[in-house]
Amino acid sequence: MVDEPGQPPALTTLSLAEKAHEKQPVNQVVTPFDVSGGVDEHGKLLPVDYDKLVREFGATPITPTLLERFEKVTGHRPHRFMRRGIVFSHRDLTAILDRYEKGQPFYLYTGRGPSSDSMHVGHTVPFEFTKWLQDVFDVPLVIMMTDDEKYMHSAKVEVEDAKRYTKANVKDIIAVGFDMKKTFIFSDFDFIGGAFYENICRMAKRITINQVRGTFGFNDSNNIGEFHFCATQSATAFATSFPQIFGTDRKKVSSIPCLIPCAIDQDPYFRQCRDNAEKMKYKKPSLIHSVFLPALQGPGSKMSASVDVSAIFMSDAPSRIKNKINKYAFSGGQETAELHRELGGNSKVDVPFQYLTFFLEDDAELESIRKSYESGELMTGEMKQRCIAELQTYVQGFQERRAKVTDEIVAEFMRPRSLEWKGNPNPVVAETTKK
Amino acid sequence: MVDEPGQPPALTTLSLAEKAHEKQPVNQVVTPFDVSGGVDEHGKLLPVDYDKLVREFGATPITPTLLERFEKVTGHRPHRFMRRGIVFSHRDLTAILDRYEKGQPFYLYTGRGPSSDSMHVGHTVPFEFTKWLQDVFDVPLVIMMTDDEKYMHSAKVEVEDAKRYTKANVKDIIAVGFDMKKTFIFSDFDFIGGAFYENICRMAKRITINQVRGTFGFNDSNNIGEFHFCATQSATAFATSFPQIFGTDRKKVSSIPCLIPCAIDQDPYFRQCRDNAEKMKYKKPSLIHSVFLPALQGPGSKMSASVDVSAIFMSDAPSRIKNKINKYAFSGGQETAELHRELGGNSKVDVPFQYLTFFLEDDAELESIRKSYESGELMTGEMKQRCIAELQTYVQGFQERRAKVTDEIVAEFMRPRSLEWKGNPNPVVAETTKK
Repeated sequence: MVDEPGQPPALTTLSLAEKAHEKQPVNQVVTPFDVSGGVDEHGKLLPVDYDKLVREFGATPITPTLLERFEKVTGHRPHRFMRRGIVFSHRDLTAILDRYEKGQPFYLYTGRGPSSDSMHVGHTVPFEFTKWLQDVFDVPLVIMMTDDEKYMHSAKVEVEDAKRYTKANVKDIIAVGFDMKKTFIFSDFDFIGGAFYENICRMAKRITINQVRGTFGFNDSNNIGEFHFCATQSATAFATSFPQIFGTDRKKVSSIPCLIPCAIDQDPYFRQCRDNAEKMKYKKPSLIHSVFLPALQGPGSKMSASVDVSAIFMSDAPSRIKNKINKYAFSGGQETAELHRELGGNSKVDVPFQYLTFFLEDDAELESIRKSYESGELMTGEMKQRCIAELQTYVQGFQERRAKVTDEIVAEFMRPRSLEWKGNPNPVVAETTKK
Repeated sequence: MVDEPGQPPALTTLSLAEKAHEKQPVNQVVTPFDVSGGVDEHGKLLPVDYDKLVREFGATPITPTLLERFEKVTGHRPHRFMRRGIVFSHRDLTAILDRYEKGQPFYLYTGRGPSSDSMHVGHTVPFEFTKWLQDVFDVPLVIMMTDDEKYMHSAKVEVEDAKRYTKANVKDIIAVGFDMKKTFIFSDFDFIGGAFYENICRMAKRITINQVRGTFGFNDSNNIGEFHFCATQSATAFATSFPQIFGTDRKKVSSIPCLIPCAIDQDPYFRQCRDNAEKMKYKKPSLIHSVFLPALQGPGSKMSASVDVSAIFMSDAPSRIKNKINKYAFSGGQETAELHRELGGNSKVDVPFQYLTFFLEDDAELESIRKSYESGELMTGEMKQRCIAELQTYVQGFQERRAKVTDEIVAEFMRPRSLEWKGNPNPVVAETTKK
């Protein structure tokens, strides 16, 4: 995975900004290494067109009917991300619902490319959603820290740096609230080997250089580690990679699929994985995709872990959150209070309102805010206040949990071990090492 | 490494044979995946031109002066392979002799791509020589079984097959006579992970797709595992990959180089390794290259594990050895006994004599055989008898040792552990697992 799952690498921003300057229209590009909605003929950065993306990727939109089925099968009202189109498309989610209905095993898989920086609110979106899915389904979850890829993809990062980032980032991830009993977080540097490595080789054998180039936009100057990592990210989608969790009955374990909640930019890895899974006599993974949280500067701009004012960071103090939103959050309001009262605000581009869409749980309140803003009743300053309050609460809760995550807790989450969940077919599996 | 280290894959033979049929001259090609001396304008298969190869590869021929220094430094007369140009070129062997002189640590590294077949006499050449070097230098030796590469490179081989081949082949290798206390044999499938995997990533980061394509003759239809394996074969050349042998003092261990005895076709891997070693703050490995044992059918023909009559196999019974040499060994003798007595035999192309060059220890006897053959005194049948006797003795000794190699002995050789050798700087290192 890239520096910031769900967020484009900084380089893309630069190159796009350059292209914008040239006023040449640029098409939308979304790969794990390049995310942009493109540039229009006036040189304006465009937001990602998710409908177009779903069509191009061949994914399936999440429909009200599917949400109804989800609620019926799980007994849980769909998460606000699902209700509001933030989690917007999928591959074979229905297959997972079928299994859940029948009490058949599956697991969850997500990951992060560790970086030196604190996570920002955009990073927490897939993890928040994954935690919720874990609570709803009560199944094992594996979280892959792709420190090997981070090292091989980043000129300035050394192995030791990537391993250090992993440890710090895992604390952030744990602070999202995952259940230790059902969650295994691993560093590639620590965990690659044994059954996992075998699956990496099984996948690598089926992926040609040509296929990677096409899917990821690599060229011949990319290193062999970057190409090969496609197999590593895929191998985590097979339960046989985790004998300590699922046991060693190969035939039985081969039939256990996973559900991967991820930002849409990670889809190319798993399209490739799905293309090969059945040839490997494994189940295809299912996917559920989320959109990207917009940067403070609004649609088309990019959140970047290296640009402090582009995002609210999970380490930001309440006053910093307030200042950032007041100063930098792109507003959909009118130029003057008078005009605003007369014409109303544009909630579709208003960043504070977008953030409320991500983080405010109450549908009725959100709808009331929208109406009030669009009618010109709710002023820009008031919208920002509401957003500030919500994010301060969200970030503070995170920081309180983060403060309690000790090195010992990190070590336990990262120890290869059996997990506990309802319907574990191997509840008395002895503790084993990864081999 | 390929199916048969030091021997070309069967495919090459086929494609070359086709080209030979077309009577188009073909240049010499030597990569780990393709070994041929080419085809002349009459469609005749040519033997590998080793002098040309040394020049093209930029290696250094082994000179009488270097052999003298070897003897002076080690106190051992150079091995018959060195005396007779079978081990014929090197890279930085002098650096290893310097270290030996100063009592500075180094280690030996060789390997094999496991296959289902019994090893043949051609396979044992690099191992015989490695065993001798181990006895002379009294240093640790690591032997890499590249079952991962074997799997990824061979359409019909499954992971389980490759692992089974490893186990069987390790028995053959142990039967060469390695000292268990100083030898660690590992399967990539078992051992990749931890410090070794970190070095694989460090190397992979420095090798582009372009470089691999150029060096190994791969194209875009090769899989990402085949490309990536270049990093794996290189990473074994760094002592930090083996903390259980050399300890975990990274700075100290980084300064320990290795000497790699291998057939010349493996050189491309290590050229690439040497190009990057110092950027990784490691010592460049040194190399010492051997030629290929000719197939029974003579110069230009190929020994193949899948063509029984192309080679003497280490599992052949004495009668089979006798029959193969009598029936298939290419002779440098004349058409009739009369002509032979008159003109003498050609020892340069005579396969029985070539085999004696590899396996008969006594220089004086070998020289006497050569003279007697070239003068027409020694007849073809007699030459074959002498060769048969020598190979029967060699293979019988091997088979006796092979019969004593139990599963327990294999397991102990393959257990990651500390080794014992003179001058071990960490003699009391606790037994550790590979991580």
